Amino acid sequence: MRVIVINTGTELLLGNTLNTHLAFLAREVFPLGLRIDQQLTVPDGVAIRDALTRAMAEAEIVFVTGGLGPTTDDLTREVAAELLGLPLQQDAAVTTAITDRCTLRGFPVTERILRQAQVPEGALVLPNANGTAPGLYIAATADHPHLFLLPGPPRELHPMFRGSVWPILGTLLNGRAAPACRTLTLACVGESLVEAKVGSQILALEGVELGYCAHAGEVDVRVLGPASIVAEAERLIREAFPHAVFTDNGEKLEAVVVRALIERSETIATAESCTGGYIAHRLTNVPGASAAFLAGYVTYANEAKSEALGVDPQLIAQHGAVSEAVARRMAEGARAKANSTYALATTGIAGPGGGSAEKPVGTVFVALASAGAATHVQKFHLPSDRETFKQLTAQHALELLRRRLAAS
Amino acid sequence: MRVIVINTGTELLLGNTLNTHLAFLAREVFPLGLRIDQQLTVPDGVAIRDALTRAMAEAEIVFVTGGLGPTTDDLTREVAAELLGLPLQQDAAVTTAITDRCTLRGFPVTERILRQAQVPEGALVLPNANGTAPGLYIAATADHPHLFLLPGPPRELHPMFRGSVWPILGTLLNGRAAPACRTLTLACVGESLVEAKVGSQILALEGVELGYCAHAGEVDVRVLGPASIVAEAERLIREAFPHAVFTDNGEKLEAVVVRALIERSETIATAESCTGGYIAHRLTNVPGASAAFLAGYVTYANEAKSEALGVDPQLIAQHGAVSEAVARRMAEGARAKANSTYALATTGIAGPGGGSAEKPVGTVFVALASAGAATHVQKFHLPSDRETFKQLTAQHALELLRRRLAAS
Repeated sequence: MRVIVINTGTELLLGNTLNTHLAFLAREVFPLGLRIDQQLTVPDGVAIRDALTRAMAEAEIVFVTGGLGPTTDDLTREVAAELLGLPLQQDAAVTTAITDRCTLRGFPVTERILRQAQVPEGALVLPNANGTAPGLYIAATADHPHLFLLPGPPRELHPMFRGSVWPILGTLLNGRAAPACRTLTLACVGESLVEAKVGSQILALEGVELGYCAHAGEVDVRVLGPASIVAEAERLIREAFPHAVFTDNGEKLEAVVVRALIERSETIATAESCTGGYIAHRLTNVPGASAAFLAGYVTYANEAKSEALGVDPQLIAQHGAVSEAVARRMAEGARAKANSTYALATTGIAGPGGGSAEKPVGTVFVALASAGAATHVQKFHLPSDRETFKQLTAQHALELLRRRLAAS
Repeated sequence: MRVIVINTGTELLLGNTLNTHLAFLAREVFPLGLRIDQQLTVPDGVAIRDALTRAMAEAEIVFVTGGLGPTTDDLTREVAAELLGLPLQQDAAVTTAITDRCTLRGFPVTERILRQAQVPEGALVLPNANGTAPGLYIAATADHPHLFLLPGPPRELHPMFRGSVWPILGTLLNGRAAPACRTLTLACVGESLVEAKVGSQILALEGVELGYCAHAGEVDVRVLGPASIVAEAERLIREAFPHAVFTDNGEKLEAVVVRALIERSETIATAESCTGGYIAHRLTNVPGASAAFLAGYVTYANEAKSEALGVDPQLIAQHGAVSEAVARRMAEGARAKANSTYALATTGIAGPGGGSAEKPVGTVFVALASAGAATHVQKFHLPSDRETFKQLTAQHALELLRRRLAAS
């Protein structure tokens, strides 16, 4: 079934408010086997007329959010009724609910507020537990698609969708099978490499849909289609990248690492120069991280590397702070100080300043010290803006540890 | 001028990714006197054809994001060229830029990657400092509107928009009067307090438009209208909140703090428990931070508080790790170890676990130690999800230091 979402709201088009409705609705309908084919944002006021006319001509299900309130720029209800040729009637039960709600909160019951109790003939009222304007459902006929008019505020929309819209959709879609969907996330691999290695093989599968979404230091590879085809595509990806796939359920890299550490009753410390605390921040974003993360040392100044981690000032003088030798000592020093199973260290040149011919901006050393093995140091060249550099470096560091944990 | 935005990306319609492009573009074009009249999201692939056809028939400026990459579902460039009847030509300069970028990073230069160097005849290339796919600008003719094809990843889109698109729009809109616009950002103040204190006074000004955008721990208050009215509104806000306004140009709180420290040749260290390195991360995001930020100690475990900062284990046993006494010692310990002018410390209960009746989830102590004054400790109650809690706490800590620097 073709689904179109219309979001009304001038604040969305001015950039004051981020549109979270599309993502919410998309995730809610997906398990029912529905996908949103198109989404439109229009300002408050009369623009809803054109958008709704067009959407009703093209879709089988239309969701509209916003424009049900009491103010003059709220026109969704009136425009929908007019386009469908349905007279608006004052609904007694909704009138009582609105009056009660206003009385309870000490708001005056004005004519404008009661306008929200007007219901197109034959429409189903969707109760609003968190606001005055109810939602409305108008079932499809030969002339128009299913139409859901829903409130704009997320705290009103979300419970209404789950409480009232879901059951209606369930009835409409009775017996319909959802396509399988699998999203694999690969660390430290670019989308073009995935495409080059397995793209044509996957696209040769009958009925498959393949998509990519790249983030700094990782890529989501999404496959949709019949279950057996999706399973085959997943097999191809995992075979081509036996180590890089770290989740198939959207779990973050730091969460995978923290979970693996907790499962093994092992612990981690960090010694960060160029990443400036970002790795510690990511690890401590994971609920329950305190069971695995012991301490982080953000040793930005050379003196701090010596004071906090015991790095010999002569070593820094000899090799420079951005060097394999210093990265190694930072990791080993952090592990010794925190008494942890592992320690990750980073030292590099984030830029924009500080680069040289020998060590240009983007040069970084990542070290992993551990109880059971020699310290491993890897050099990377990740020229980019300062924040992306921190993200990419953190990604390489966390991935170094994740692979160690996965391999042993 | 009528402006339409088309965002391509199946991930947006599946709800995997929140669409932040609309809000970004809306805010960027607003100071030029442009508003976005409509926005559309379509999936990757051929759906761009219908959307673009329709938008080109209705708008005077069309922005498209996404679909410029190397993979098979990226069709924006090809479809636009086809609809406009412009042949695609391999651009030598872009080919070189892409080849250099890949070589620098050790990626193979594949045919698919080089497809990104195809440019419709007569289009202007918008350089991409953070990715391989350049943007494209095709100037309006009698037959079609101005068309901007822009990359999907925000870290590529944002600098390209500011660096290349803005100047072009400035030329297009030459002489057009943009309304005056002033955005003041207030730390640790809620939008409803701003509204309650000055909302009605500002709205009483002739021709003013007032908007709010709340973030965790700060609020943007935006005033639009004739220049004299905007100046009067700004005066009202600053008078009502003489200390909370920290920028009128979008500068981040951490950047204001780092700049003030550098101006005074002073330095900072951090001792973080519940914020887990987030304050250090924010401070080190600021270019040049190494001149002011010396060291951060992420002392998650109690042992780390003692080992790294010299907090007496008995003090922790007596008062608990989340206490005024421990926050104070953490800040003083960090300042002594790093030999810095100031040190900020945080200790609190981020949740979801770890709360008690006496110290519920959201309890947090923030301490500021300094060379010239007694250590100041403040208690807050900030119940929220884990990441918001870290943001709010970091905001209070940075604001404590900013006000100290502003006052002295």
